[in-house]
Amino acid sequence: MGMFKSEDVVVYEPVQNIDLSPDGGKTYLRANVQAPRMTGNLIRVFAWILELKYFGKLLVRLLIKLNLVKKLIADAELNEPPTYVPTHPWEELNEKDTVIIQPGSSPPEQVQEAVNCLPLRSEKVLNTQASFQRWTIQDYSRAYISRETTPLEVAKHFLAAVHETSSTFLRMSFFINYSSEDILKQATESTLRYEKGEPISVLDGVPIAVKDEIDCLPYPTTGGTKWLHKVRPCKSDASCVKLLRSCGALIVGKTNMHELGAGTSGINPHYGAARNPYDLNRISGGSSSGSATVVSAGLCPAALGVDGGGSVRLPASLCGVVGFKPTFGRVSHSGVLPLNWTVGMVGVLAGTVEDAFIVYAAISGNLLSPQAKSLSPKVDFPLLNSTDSIFNVKMATYEEWFNDCHDDIKRCCSQALDQLCEHYKWKTVELTIPEIEVMRLAHYTTIGSECSASLGAYLQKQDTKEIGCDVRAALCFYNGFTSKEYLNAQRLRNRHLHIYKEIFNKADIIVSPTTGVTAYPITDDAIKYGELDYVNGAALVRYMIAGNFLGLPAVTVPVGYDKMGLPIGLQFIGRPWSESTLIRIAYMMQNLCLSSYRKPQVFYNMLKSQE
Amino acid sequence: MGMFKSEDVVVYEPVQNIDLSPDGGKTYLRANVQAPRMTGNLIRVFAWILELKYFGKLLVRLLIKLNLVKKLIADAELNEPPTYVPTHPWEELNEKDTVIIQPGSSPPEQVQEAVNCLPLRSEKVLNTQASFQRWTIQDYSRAYISRETTPLEVAKHFLAAVHETSSTFLRMSFFINYSSEDILKQATESTLRYEKGEPISVLDGVPIAVKDEIDCLPYPTTGGTKWLHKVRPCKSDASCVKLLRSCGALIVGKTNMHELGAGTSGINPHYGAARNPYDLNRISGGSSSGSATVVSAGLCPAALGVDGGGSVRLPASLCGVVGFKPTFGRVSHSGVLPLNWTVGMVGVLAGTVEDAFIVYAAISGNLLSPQAKSLSPKVDFPLLNSTDSIFNVKMATYEEWFNDCHDDIKRCCSQALDQLCEHYKWKTVELTIPEIEVMRLAHYTTIGSECSASLGAYLQKQDTKEIGCDVRAALCFYNGFTSKEYLNAQRLRNRHLHIYKEIFNKADIIVSPTTGVTAYPITDDAIKYGELDYVNGAALVRYMIAGNFLGLPAVTVPVGYDKMGLPIGLQFIGRPWSESTLIRIAYMMQNLCLSSYRKPQVFYNMLKSQE
Repeated sequence: MGMFKSEDVVVYEPVQNIDLSPDGGKTYLRANVQAPRMTGNLIRVFAWILELKYFGKLLVRLLIKLNLVKKLIADAELNEPPTYVPTHPWEELNEKDTVIIQPGSSPPEQVQEAVNCLPLRSEKVLNTQASFQRWTIQDYSRAYISRETTPLEVAKHFLAAVHETSSTFLRMSFFINYSSEDILKQATESTLRYEKGEPISVLDGVPIAVKDEIDCLPYPTTGGTKWLHKVRPCKSDASCVKLLRSCGALIVGKTNMHELGAGTSGINPHYGAARNPYDLNRISGGSSSGSATVVSAGLCPAALGVDGGGSVRLPASLCGVVGFKPTFGRVSHSGVLPLNWTVGMVGVLAGTVEDAFIVYAAISGNLLSPQAKSLSPKVDFPLLNSTDSIFNVKMATYEEWFNDCHDDIKRCCSQALDQLCEHYKWKTVELTIPEIEVMRLAHYTTIGSECSASLGAYLQKQDTKEIGCDVRAALCFYNGFTSKEYLNAQRLRNRHLHIYKEIFNKADIIVSPTTGVTAYPITDDAIKYGELDYVNGAALVRYMIAGNFLGLPAVTVPVGYDKMGLPIGLQFIGRPWSESTLIRIAYMMQNLCLSSYRKPQVFYNMLKSQE
Repeated sequence: MGMFKSEDVVVYEPVQNIDLSPDGGKTYLRANVQAPRMTGNLIRVFAWILELKYFGKLLVRLLIKLNLVKKLIADAELNEPPTYVPTHPWEELNEKDTVIIQPGSSPPEQVQEAVNCLPLRSEKVLNTQASFQRWTIQDYSRAYISRETTPLEVAKHFLAAVHETSSTFLRMSFFINYSSEDILKQATESTLRYEKGEPISVLDGVPIAVKDEIDCLPYPTTGGTKWLHKVRPCKSDASCVKLLRSCGALIVGKTNMHELGAGTSGINPHYGAARNPYDLNRISGGSSSGSATVVSAGLCPAALGVDGGGSVRLPASLCGVVGFKPTFGRVSHSGVLPLNWTVGMVGVLAGTVEDAFIVYAAISGNLLSPQAKSLSPKVDFPLLNSTDSIFNVKMATYEEWFNDCHDDIKRCCSQALDQLCEHYKWKTVELTIPEIEVMRLAHYTTIGSECSASLGAYLQKQDTKEIGCDVRAALCFYNGFTSKEYLNAQRLRNRHLHIYKEIFNKADIIVSPTTGVTAYPITDDAIKYGELDYVNGAALVRYMIAGNFLGLPAVTVPVGYDKMGLPIGLQFIGRPWSESTLIRIAYMMQNLCLSSYRKPQVFYNMLKSQE
């Protein structure tokens, strides 16, 4: 690691001296999580103890120290001043084969530009050997234009499907709120536009779901809780929702999420455990759990999520869909629950890379305030239909980190990597990424502290019995950090920004599995009270943190399945503002995997024209 | 106040609703400091208790809560997200009668431009009815050019004076370190340049002192401690020192300071209590104590200080000299001890406004890194020799706050304000500045937390017996804040940035006394162990905080003396980047006070040509 231990004080060596070479002499420190899995009565007692006024605080501090926060963060010797926010100055990247979008373009214009970047349908149909495909945004659009179906028809199918999956038997818990009235109203208006031959964009009438962390009328924004929407009423659409609506999208409701974003399983004791469409008895992952499952199950081609610690990418990976998290600042955060300020970003979950791209095109760049407009970086899209150019990619991998996952994941992701090298002649660059566990702790300190400050005033008035036990425990930890720990975490952020800048001098992207484990089982005792599973939790966020802590863009692409048929994703992390490159790489990865895609156990066919 | 209390939770009303009018219905909350003054054995015991591992931490948290940090900051309901750093975007202010400095001008060029802005000497001599004047930079320069004296002569006088004041009888404790050898070497070189007729600038050979918080070869940077320089060796000049040297300034040593900047009296148990030249038995104020006293006592026409919580302005005011703190970011912080990151700024103490201006011209704008250069705001200087233009100023005052000071200060400062209105036809704008006490607590949380993080690793290895007792107590508080408190303080910073922006829509400057009390006595038991005097401490920082927490430029001008002959200062706070306006206003205030200036008890005449 870039540190040496002397008399038990960690001294971080100057960042210029860090050696990133594969034999750089550093040890890969695995997450030091020694904790029993807790559910049922055990978790109830644990939460109660942590909430005790004096003893609870002492216990929290003890556990924080045992988790090496004291050693690696609080007491460590650092040179760097803090970097509080991962804003990246705009840099001209000169990405190949991109089209630059005119500043001031409307969302429908940006969506059309994105569509223009995609290959024609006939090419795709000819080229594909897909065994299973989800309906895409363009499929809906074509079906509407050709009168094969209407938005109203689709809305009715959608409502029937959701109703069916709300039954006690098939309790998928996709949504926290959805309004038949509102959906049918939007669908009727969209149908009328198609009848007049005046669809707003390719998104017109296409069902898009929104994570219940994002303001969206006429719904409350619960954040997965029973109370937050009462103290923070939803008054208007969030910026990203407004932009989607302006494209004519059919906003179909607020998807289930892990309560307050404070967990990774997607098990919500108030609204139900979101179930993995590939296996109903397994988690979906979270915290954008419902957004992942509605897309995976075919109810929507795309959904919005929010990613503060992998919360778009990891559920997307567990549910076998695409998850895309842009650069910090690319998409407006206005109207998103203030669960933190410097690590969470709106992201997109979709059945295909093309659809993630289209939704991204609708919501990015068009920051609504005039001041923000002048600051927003140039928007450019990758010409995915360009077949001529040679596109060479250097992919950085860190072997020990890459391999710190379940065998099936390692096998499947390594194969995918090999395919990329074989098929496209891309190269891998082996290196060492130092201090990954340190970054995880610094990120946790940051997201926890910011959540504690942001929700603090609300939580004081709140009866904690209304909060799930695992979240109650998490909130006790969130409240337990010192200002020194928070500040040193920001100094580590500065440090790691430099380290990753150096990595991107050697490679174009960083590749890793998206998660360390596939979807694990939901147990009955977890459903009622939630669960604390720190070991699985650490495995789920293992590859996630740089995207949040450093604001880097990242995307996960489904690349296969484990022995039990559970989805596996491969993640690509890019330079700041390199979404065009990322989308292209993800698209090319997807193209190599199309023939392997499988239909989930629970799947709904919204467009009945094909079977 | 802009808050209402409901069920003991403080809810800050939306900032747009805040009423700044004088009858805005808000109460002026005086600093809630209920603490006995502690020195001698009492302070030793207090420090020892606070340092106890468990009980001490509990006591610290209890005291933090009693001081309303919990109520006003930790548990308060706020709307604003955090603003971590008070960086102000560059705004064209269209200040009248200024000359814009060519980007890339060297420090000597900027110094010459400043000199060109000043009235000619003859005008000044004719106009002045000064009863007492300190030698100015231009006086030194003229004396050197006319061969009345030489830098070497002055250096010898200087050394003799310092030597005399180091005696047990007249223990002024001006300096922590000064090197006769280094001073004489510089003086010799400067003398040679004058002999050749090639002085670098008007600063050539002029003695300038540097607070021991700023790196300056060949000296260690002690920060007022016995140990910091051993763990953080000084390797090169700080940026501001480098710039001064490049003008030929004679750098005469490292001035005394309150240990680690963690106090306001200037009583340093290791290096001696800095004594007020107007009354040796009284404090100088701090933390730039020695910088204030060397200027007040005539040893140097100017000195550098650092101002994190009033630490340039309040000692300047107590010692009857000018103190000038520019906008955050105006002067490079490179080479300054990292005692905090977002509230401390290099500032200038000088005998006159003109000299503060000249030194400011040497050290501002020329941020040495190329990236910083491209970001630095335009530099402009006020044409102080312009007599034609009408210069209308609207001066904001908050009556209750203004009057929260000793009667003599209130009388003297009110008179000065009246003089400005009478003589220059300026107007006062009465208003209410809300949440002043809240800002004080938020600032303390910020400066304390940042100091704790920055020095944390050093302090762990340090035997606290080497630290003064008052600073040991302060450090215990610094270590006692939660991350939620720090973050909410940053949200308050955002809030107050908006409030002050609104104030500057109504007025050009804010005027107040510089301190709430004049220099109070040094007691014997304070000298050995330091003292904790929270009541006087709160009075000293009462008017200081906005300059630091919000990064606003501010200047203090001596305007009179209290019944015991102790100096009183009037402070002007300006908009971001409005140094030209501030300098002009300070200059015009000074001109009205020249006839009232008095000679201190301890004063040295460095240029013997006049008596």
